[in-house]
Amino acid sequence: MTRSLLTLAAALLALPGLAQRLHSPSHKLALQFGLSPAGEPTYQLSYDNRPVLRPSRLGVAMQGQAGFVQGLTVVRVDSTEHDDTWAPVWGEVKQIRNHYKELLVTLQQPGTEQRQVQLRFRLFDDGLGFRYEWPRQPNLQYFTVTGEQTEFNLPADHKAFWIPGDYDSNEYAYTTSRLSQVNSASITPIQEKSAPQRVQTPLMLKTDNGLYVNIHEAALVNYPAMMLNVNPQTFGLAAQLVPSATGAAAYLQAPEHTPWRTVVVADNAPAILASKLILNLNEPSQLTETSWIRPQKFVGVWWEMHVNRSSWNYSDASNLKLADTDWQALKPNGHHGANTQNVKRYIDFAAQNSLQSVLVEGWNVGWEDWHGNWKEEVFDFVTPYPDFDVAELQQYAASKGVKLIMHHETSGSVTNYERRQDRALDFMQAHGYDAVKTGYVGRIIPRGEHHDGQWMVNHYNRTAQNMAQRRIMVDMHESVRPTGLHRTYPNWLAAEAARGNEFNAWSEGNPPEHETILPFTRLMGGPMDYTPGIFRIKLESWNPERNKGRQVHTTLAKQLALYVTMYSPLQMAADLPEAYEQHPDAFQFIKDVAVDWDDTRILQAEPGEYLTIARQAKGKNEWYLGAITDENARQQTVKLDFLPAGQKYLATIYADAKGASWDKNPEAYQIRKQTVDSKTTLKLQLAPGGGAAVSLKPVGAR
Amino acid sequence: MTRSLLTLAAALLALPGLAQRLHSPSHKLALQFGLSPAGEPTYQLSYDNRPVLRPSRLGVAMQGQAGFVQGLTVVRVDSTEHDDTWAPVWGEVKQIRNHYKELLVTLQQPGTEQRQVQLRFRLFDDGLGFRYEWPRQPNLQYFTVTGEQTEFNLPADHKAFWIPGDYDSNEYAYTTSRLSQVNSASITPIQEKSAPQRVQTPLMLKTDNGLYVNIHEAALVNYPAMMLNVNPQTFGLAAQLVPSATGAAAYLQAPEHTPWRTVVVADNAPAILASKLILNLNEPSQLTETSWIRPQKFVGVWWEMHVNRSSWNYSDASNLKLADTDWQALKPNGHHGANTQNVKRYIDFAAQNSLQSVLVEGWNVGWEDWHGNWKEEVFDFVTPYPDFDVAELQQYAASKGVKLIMHHETSGSVTNYERRQDRALDFMQAHGYDAVKTGYVGRIIPRGEHHDGQWMVNHYNRTAQNMAQRRIMVDMHESVRPTGLHRTYPNWLAAEAARGNEFNAWSEGNPPEHETILPFTRLMGGPMDYTPGIFRIKLESWNPERNKGRQVHTTLAKQLALYVTMYSPLQMAADLPEAYEQHPDAFQFIKDVAVDWDDTRILQAEPGEYLTIARQAKGKNEWYLGAITDENARQQTVKLDFLPAGQKYLATIYADAKGASWDKNPEAYQIRKQTVDSKTTLKLQLAPGGGAAVSLKPVGAR
Repeated sequence: MTRSLLTLAAALLALPGLAQRLHSPSHKLALQFGLSPAGEPTYQLSYDNRPVLRPSRLGVAMQGQAGFVQGLTVVRVDSTEHDDTWAPVWGEVKQIRNHYKELLVTLQQPGTEQRQVQLRFRLFDDGLGFRYEWPRQPNLQYFTVTGEQTEFNLPADHKAFWIPGDYDSNEYAYTTSRLSQVNSASITPIQEKSAPQRVQTPLMLKTDNGLYVNIHEAALVNYPAMMLNVNPQTFGLAAQLVPSATGAAAYLQAPEHTPWRTVVVADNAPAILASKLILNLNEPSQLTETSWIRPQKFVGVWWEMHVNRSSWNYSDASNLKLADTDWQALKPNGHHGANTQNVKRYIDFAAQNSLQSVLVEGWNVGWEDWHGNWKEEVFDFVTPYPDFDVAELQQYAASKGVKLIMHHETSGSVTNYERRQDRALDFMQAHGYDAVKTGYVGRIIPRGEHHDGQWMVNHYNRTAQNMAQRRIMVDMHESVRPTGLHRTYPNWLAAEAARGNEFNAWSEGNPPEHETILPFTRLMGGPMDYTPGIFRIKLESWNPERNKGRQVHTTLAKQLALYVTMYSPLQMAADLPEAYEQHPDAFQFIKDVAVDWDDTRILQAEPGEYLTIARQAKGKNEWYLGAITDENARQQTVKLDFLPAGQKYLATIYADAKGASWDKNPEAYQIRKQTVDSKTTLKLQLAPGGGAAVSLKPVGAR
Repeated sequence: MTRSLLTLAAALLALPGLAQRLHSPSHKLALQFGLSPAGEPTYQLSYDNRPVLRPSRLGVAMQGQAGFVQGLTVVRVDSTEHDDTWAPVWGEVKQIRNHYKELLVTLQQPGTEQRQVQLRFRLFDDGLGFRYEWPRQPNLQYFTVTGEQTEFNLPADHKAFWIPGDYDSNEYAYTTSRLSQVNSASITPIQEKSAPQRVQTPLMLKTDNGLYVNIHEAALVNYPAMMLNVNPQTFGLAAQLVPSATGAAAYLQAPEHTPWRTVVVADNAPAILASKLILNLNEPSQLTETSWIRPQKFVGVWWEMHVNRSSWNYSDASNLKLADTDWQALKPNGHHGANTQNVKRYIDFAAQNSLQSVLVEGWNVGWEDWHGNWKEEVFDFVTPYPDFDVAELQQYAASKGVKLIMHHETSGSVTNYERRQDRALDFMQAHGYDAVKTGYVGRIIPRGEHHDGQWMVNHYNRTAQNMAQRRIMVDMHESVRPTGLHRTYPNWLAAEAARGNEFNAWSEGNPPEHETILPFTRLMGGPMDYTPGIFRIKLESWNPERNKGRQVHTTLAKQLALYVTMYSPLQMAADLPEAYEQHPDAFQFIKDVAVDWDDTRILQAEPGEYLTIARQAKGKNEWYLGAITDENARQQTVKLDFLPAGQKYLATIYADAKGASWDKNPEAYQIRKQTVDSKTTLKLQLAPGGGAAVSLKPVGAR
């Protein structure tokens, strides 16, 4: 439902500085738009009369022409209200309400060419979205954006949860600091060094007067990702678009628009996590038939490589060339993970435990020197190693009712992947694969392009589309961080695009607070394939020599809780079968927990500290609850008043054992069961770096 | 046959400056290799004791390491001689002798890493080829070439036939000047402005003491094209590698080698044209079955667009987007060339005149604003315009025994082409196409890459390979200039890669000397799809308004001669059927002339002045002769002593009529027949900008 509220005549509004005001549906948020004396568009935002954004400039700079930065006049203003409800193909909730008021401001350059840009603001009760739009017009067809003067000027020195503005990686631990203290100079770059005061979005902020503000973008399509340059004196944030190989930001053709820049605002942290603003600003899916899209849990030949029990590569040869190598003749190294027998073991384990799929990494030739060489011809995506029998495994998996998940690591050589993608998808379909994990480790080819630039953004989206046409689900790693496009492409189940659990295997690891921050940052844009479920926390036992000192920085119970707190329709049971076989009682939670939900309640949340979330399984009267903490032990008091009144549930509580802690005693857990109902209050004892997971299944008929 | 002549011990040669000498098989050419006191490799070349190259440095610079430019030592020298004969799949001659002496010098960097490069010199009686090779070695695997210090230091201020060093286009008219006068500052760039003293190869040189020298390269694979920076004071030429988007030149992995740098030398101009040095330096084809590769003549829906009789685009709409446009709903402009009826007309014409194929440009959607926008999604290569009935034309062409030639214009958006190429080739094969003309007009995407850089070089070669796998012949336009790779990929019939006949339609045109220079420059590397055969020389008659003052800068008779002088296994009869129907007697030569040859004789040649070539048709006792001149009228006396003794031939001589000239009376020709034999001497009167074509068919049994 959209109804036009008012359209003001152009003449009235041509006066610079004449302000436009817009309130959110319940008047919680107020937006003011105006022009500065220099003809610069500006906006400001407040929440319950508390300033969220001070006057902040807007504008887009262009190559070889004036752009839309100053000297602009308002030639038209339109306003509408929209309120409807839609159902995602899968998600955290069954129904999503999309209720906003909209202001559409048409701005014109001086001069005879009458070039126009429109600013479309959508003001929800939980935040603001706005974007630039270039309507079809005679004197602006093809154009190149060099940058934006979009600002988010904050009124004070907020606390910020940030990662460096690396154009090619988001796999950082978060730093928590005041805006004035943002400085990544001492942080080792994952891919490319960031300017010290440049940070990535989603940027989570907390004000001293109790507001929570999240700045990100929605529907990143045909445009580079936006990073933010922090002014430590003024607390202003300025948009920094990731450049293309030429240095320009975006090559566009009108009609076109930018992504939505989003500012989610609330006076409590749980409301930030409950916001559906970013999804609402994305386009609906065009798919009419979606039964082939299946939220799922999976295991994989994967963690065993991370913990140095096996290798992706089949041989220990190096400096190979894809086309010139006789892969059959290579001398096997004897510890290649993706061999037929080992994959069968995972298939068996998945079948026994009702997990839908098995990911296999390292199945295809090219892993001997796949990384770090900026080489174009790394993988061909269709040639298995000699010890990986595609046909036999296809048959075996099918006989067990298990699907294999394909793996397309590109090594960042995306031209190579694109020219082979049709052949790779033909291969998948010929061999019964319906899901693929893609990877983009390393520097991008086309050389000079960045993971987060326009060209790669188009690649990710095009890949999601290509996959959808073939009814293939996709999980992307090392991609740009999500912006809600899983609404548009529901086959795009998840992405990594942040620092996942894997970093615990081969770096200083993720600090215990990490998983309490991710939902406020990376997950604002969409589901993450974090790969939870590591039971064997101390990794030395897998390989004492190579894993010395390595461990996961949580307790085992917290790993279970992540299946609830870290939302994704695609959840890995990431550890090895033998790790799970040692703890069948704890593994029961992973077997039980849902991956698609009818409802979600953010019960307790504070970024960097703790998180308690309860979710109702899709189409079922079952709930799952996860509670996690940072490095501090906590007792969390959780009211189960989200349960339907009068219904008894058997709660199975997977908790840290007494004396457990992430560093000293991480695998100590206890499982207890109790009957509960909506009046029950649970007291969950969370160890340092710990957590608790609870399944709630109805007892008897309702 | 290769036999090792000598291998000298490393110890003996570690002395810097110790010179190595090599003579060509007949001792015409002498090469000297040495090290400068600074440990720089140097070489010099002489022909019959006349200096061809003064001492010139060699070397390759690398990113992040010392490279191979100085401080080098010789650790080994090997020498061999090779002499054999091979048969091309198609060509100017039936057999090619490959006879050279070789010197392989192994050079080592100082330091403990013992990195090595090898210089391989092959000295033929008609010139020198040399290249850099990096053998497999422990401390040099992946590396980045930033440039070369390769020099070609000429001993005097030679006359040069040059075009500017545009990294993205070779479609220039040639300038003839002394080396000291090379300066392209006033030449309008076709694509990208060249440094004023930078020129392209093949560079044709003529010395004051009667030598002809041609500098180019052979087997350009996985490396950027080489341009030459001219020092107008010293007459030194320095290699300039076309940069990638990052500024570096080449991303390599050992074992690897550069293309061969070639210096063809002779004391007469015909010997330059007869040289097979570049082909000899290319790798043999790996194809075992080549019957599907057919040298051929073709017509096309093509020139009618150039002369503004019809359009590539179907509608006059603009600013369209490929994915968003309803092509069926577009309003046709009424003069779209590639419509079903018009194509049938060409098919009929081809069938009636025994021409094998019909090229159709503008058949597929996207031409409305295809050019000049640096847009990525321009064409999809599979969607016909509404008025082009693929199935009907497939059937119609097949019923007439004619093949349609596919057209893949990329608009320079090569990422787009590559990701769609498999689908495009599937489409071709589903619809009976076995040949394709590709095009690369405009700036390249990946943005920042150049037509002549490593990435695009790899694209062209990969495309030739992809096509070969599917048994598709290919003709590339706007590609890098050829380097003899048609030996390796005999399905790569021809390329444009120079200023073709089409420039006469919409520019100041090609000067009358143009076709006398091309064989000494562009054609040194391989066949050109020049599109000869324009009969209607003055183009105003096609469209008085839009073609005002435009004309082809030759006589009609010269257009016929080009079928012989401008070697290609793929020759277009480029004019419209109605133009040919007005001159059936002259058209007979185009119908008759062969496109594949058992023998070729360069009878007379001087770059920029004239050219007379006779060729024997493949497998036939028929000869065809072409003679052309520049803007000057000439009488050429041609001895037919290449004919087998005792055999009478009917010579049909297509000559300029009296009073003909390219500018004032270009379409005046006369045809006469006479019986000739090997003792006959023909006197051919060539008008200004004119030529003569002669067919020689045996009379009676031999």
